[in-house]
Amino acid sequence: MRAAENDLSNPILVEVTRAALVESVHRGSIAIADADGAIRYALGDVETPVYTRSSLKPIQALPLIESGAAEAFGLSDEEIALACASHSGEPMHTSRVAAWLSRIGCSEADLACGPQAPRYEPALENMVRSGEKPSRLHNNCSGKHSGFLTLSRHWGVATVGYERLDHPVQQAVVTSLRQLSGASELPWGVDGCAAVNFALPLTGFARALAKLAGRRTVGAGRILRAMTAHPELVAGTGRACTALMRAAHGRAAVKIGAEGVYAAMIPERGLGIALKIDDGTARAAETAIAAILDTLGLLDETAQMFIRAPVLNTRNTVVGERRPAPALADAALANI
Amino acid sequence: MRAAENDLSNPILVEVTRAALVESVHRGSIAIADADGAIRYALGDVETPVYTRSSLKPIQALPLIESGAAEAFGLSDEEIALACASHSGEPMHTSRVAAWLSRIGCSEADLACGPQAPRYEPALENMVRSGEKPSRLHNNCSGKHSGFLTLSRHWGVATVGYERLDHPVQQAVVTSLRQLSGASELPWGVDGCAAVNFALPLTGFARALAKLAGRRTVGAGRILRAMTAHPELVAGTGRACTALMRAAHGRAAVKIGAEGVYAAMIPERGLGIALKIDDGTARAAETAIAAILDTLGLLDETAQMFIRAPVLNTRNTVVGERRPAPALADAALANI
Repeated sequence: MRAAENDLSNPILVEVTRAALVESVHRGSIAIADADGAIRYALGDVETPVYTRSSLKPIQALPLIESGAAEAFGLSDEEIALACASHSGEPMHTSRVAAWLSRIGCSEADLACGPQAPRYEPALENMVRSGEKPSRLHNNCSGKHSGFLTLSRHWGVATVGYERLDHPVQQAVVTSLRQLSGASELPWGVDGCAAVNFALPLTGFARALAKLAGRRTVGAGRILRAMTAHPELVAGTGRACTALMRAAHGRAAVKIGAEGVYAAMIPERGLGIALKIDDGTARAAETAIAAILDTLGLLDETAQMFIRAPVLNTRNTVVGERRPAPALADAALANI
Repeated sequence: MRAAENDLSNPILVEVTRAALVESVHRGSIAIADADGAIRYALGDVETPVYTRSSLKPIQALPLIESGAAEAFGLSDEEIALACASHSGEPMHTSRVAAWLSRIGCSEADLACGPQAPRYEPALENMVRSGEKPSRLHNNCSGKHSGFLTLSRHWGVATVGYERLDHPVQQAVVTSLRQLSGASELPWGVDGCAAVNFALPLTGFARALAKLAGRRTVGAGRILRAMTAHPELVAGTGRACTALMRAAHGRAAVKIGAEGVYAAMIPERGLGIALKIDDGTARAAETAIAAILDTLGLLDETAQMFIRAPVLNTRNTVVGERRPAPALADAALANI
């Protein structure tokens, strides 16, 4: 029998209990930067690049604003919010994306993302009842893709291939991301929606988010306003991003990403927060970001359900709890 | 900025890549015992009790056999397989559970588990179309509960409360589990289906599974036969337990549990295998158990899809891979 390996691991950020035992744990790392680029807080490995996934969307939407495309096409704050969204495929999302595409002379067929079943159960059930198949409009990233198409239209470049690294739209994202993060290298992969996605050290990602939070780039104010004014469009009914932005009353803009990533921007303090759960689970990322924002005094009591979340069984009895681990009850975090 | 904590952590067992980077990792621990109780292999922390969850079902079904209840009520191997199942709520599962309940003079109303939507999508879609609501029969544990009810009937004790620790049926499970595992303490909690569930060190759990694998308890042969003869009833269409038992052609009986647990019994070698993924994710538990069984030479090539699983995007393009981490490519494992 061999002892447990004693390798360098990230701290446990979230634990899930059942009765008297901790049943599962989630490790991860956190970086918080200010708009001057200083790292104000770091926990765990914040130097290894991690894919930013959908938490990158506020930055992926910047060229849409800063190019003048959003103004030229008269995009509403609702549409900007959708460009930053991983939406649930509810009618409020798909109808707005469809109208937006139509206005720029595009349609669902121009979206490079694949079809995806709506995450919002009543919407999915309605589709099953009516025999309708999920479309690309229902893909949680259809707003981001509509933003990419809008920028392609504005520049008069080919819309086909807009999701690929070598397309001018993605090169504009690369330029923004390099400038904001200070990262010299941007490893990339293909996201769930088929668009290119970039990896950053959490320090670099937090710096980029802090530049937005501190309005150090022209488009930041519009992004922050759109996200915080329309939290229901950034995610959807019952979702963490929506609930946390409502609980923050405009004091934080937050965005989850697949595989356990969460990004937050705190305009009043010019702070950017980036975290990654090692194992990629959303439940842990949600609890961790909620606990951090709560420690920073930014949330009202409605956010408690994400910080200490009951574990229910199929009879709706509480049998355990998901909660921040001791590492998150860090005095250094409260005193940033 | 503080360095990553250097605490005692379990090794990384499974990693998930995207393009050139490892995007997420899953840590965990493994114990393999033989029927004499010797620990033949251990990796990570195998001494801290972990909830066994649904991977306990083969042992929870033992008193049903060993009491004579299964014989008295003429239970088929299909019904024994369902008693050991976390099924997908397909018609093949719910129809058999309903018929079984009827035969023992019970009905859905006697099940202590709550209603649960079928995991099998076509079954769920049919229910949505017809307006039918998920019932307790659809609960993935309805077969286990039917076994508990059968034993209650056989003993002529109250069926109400059969899911609780103080009921004779659960006390029989406790007795079996103590004897097989050698564990002196059995911390307990309430499972997702409202039945009591027990925590064991992985060493004790592996020993208990090895006693079954080695047929060191009277009911073991029947359990092993039922599970390996009816893998589609133990889980369902497309599920890992079903596919892995098919790929093992009777040489392994396997059972997943919630929160990243997997149990396996290897009759030809009298081995019991228990593993727990720290973070509770099924994807990692499936890859880990498949890799272990493959290393032991028990699986045909159809199991490869669980060992090295492609990560697909919404356009069904391969963008990454889920795979065993180097710790699982352990020569000591191959030479047990």
